[in-house]
Amino acid sequence: MPNPTAAMLVIGDEILSGRTRDSNMYFLAGELNKLGVDLKEVRVVSDEADAIVAAVTDLSNGYDHVFTSGGIGPTHDDITADCIARAFGAAIDVRADAHAILEEHYAKTGAELNEARLRMARIPDGATLIDNPVSRAPGFTLNNVHVMAGVPAVFQAMVATVLATLAGGQPLLSQTLRVDRGEGEIAAILSALAEKYSDLSIGCYPFQINGAFGANVVVRGTEGARLDAAMTELARDLGL
Amino acid sequence: MPNPTAAMLVIGDEILSGRTRDSNMYFLAGELNKLGVDLKEVRVVSDEADAIVAAVTDLSNGYDHVFTSGGIGPTHDDITADCIARAFGAAIDVRADAHAILEEHYAKTGAELNEARLRMARIPDGATLIDNPVSRAPGFTLNNVHVMAGVPAVFQAMVATVLATLAGGQPLLSQTLRVDRGEGEIAAILSALAEKYSDLSIGCYPFQINGAFGANVVVRGTEGARLDAAMTELARDLGL
Repeated sequence: MPNPTAAMLVIGDEILSGRTRDSNMYFLAGELNKLGVDLKEVRVVSDEADAIVAAVTDLSNGYDHVFTSGGIGPTHDDITADCIARAFGAAIDVRADAHAILEEHYAKTGAELNEARLRMARIPDGATLIDNPVSRAPGFTLNNVHVMAGVPAVFQAMVATVLATLAGGQPLLSQTLRVDRGEGEIAAILSALAEKYSDLSIGCYPFQINGAFGANVVVRGTEGARLDAAMTELARDLGL
Repeated sequence: MPNPTAAMLVIGDEILSGRTRDSNMYFLAGELNKLGVDLKEVRVVSDEADAIVAAVTDLSNGYDHVFTSGGIGPTHDDITADCIARAFGAAIDVRADAHAILEEHYAKTGAELNEARLRMARIPDGATLIDNPVSRAPGFTLNNVHVMAGVPAVFQAMVATVLATLAGGQPLLSQTLRVDRGEGEIAAILSALAEKYSDLSIGCYPFQINGAFGANVVVRGTEGARLDAAMTELARDLGL
């Protein structure tokens, strides 16, 4: 059975303006890889309703799972929840279960659950809440879209919750061989290997250190024995 | 006149698998922002021809400029140039001008210009070469798509070349105010400010340091006097 597929949608002007360096993509990519879910596409869009709705619709139709990051806070530019509702034609309002979570949280902290903060309890009808152990305001899953916060600590906690509930495919194994030659020198060997081991994914990632060229060859697949065989053959062909 | 718009397409399994943390997006976002070009969308796709062709077509139709990163090296998984050609229905083969650049380079270094390396001289008909001062193998511009290497040092050098040729709009100015309160406390004030200064973009980016909540409020626009006015009003409304 092929692995489930996934896409990520990062929502935020702060990434596109170069002000903030995204870290959620890198984190999610690593976690999905460990679980055996294939991350096939990432999109970053601005805080504009039409752009968010169009991207969610596209990605939700194209992949088994969609993970979103950002735009679910209390300020006027946090419009993700409303956009997800619009994408699926779902009604959205302050929901009792989310309201109760915020009420309990703000009662404890002594801060006011004002109108702005109440925005964080806007959850589309039919969505399941995603627990937020860090700052309480929940994310949610609607159909195959998992809507999470952009703040990295919260995003990571929510990802852990969601991934625990997913039935992933087989974890993808990888082996890496560092070769101290330019990739042009080894390209023919890699090409032949990729043809022979068509069930594996073979990538070549060049680097340059102190003026010398090298490359990391990464072989990925679900069966350890196949990876072992490919790596043994690769080392032999490279005369290592 | 509105600013020109741009999109970026990152090509590479190594990003989607979580193996490599992309840095080109962050770099390009910052450079475009300085130049007054609005980066509106980023997509990351895998080394699959159909995915690359579909994304290039979409983005090329949707924005004034498209910047791609990755997949123009000598190995079998470097298929970007051929995909760009396919997206525009252009013929592609080893081109004399690119061939000459590689020939001169490898003659100097004493390495062999073998079949794999010759792949890097595959340039679509009608494309303009982008100089690569780092490792010589050129990028290219075809229509509104700028095709560049994924290796960060090379990518950055190519971006500098391309941006020097673009007629950008007005540079986007920004001012930031750090506020040591949770964003829920200041959301109403920001919302009112955003409504009054509808020509500016006002973003709120929360942080948490040592358990205390705060937020950076970033105001962006093209006219310094408007930014000054908005920031003065904001500070007054916050009682700072």
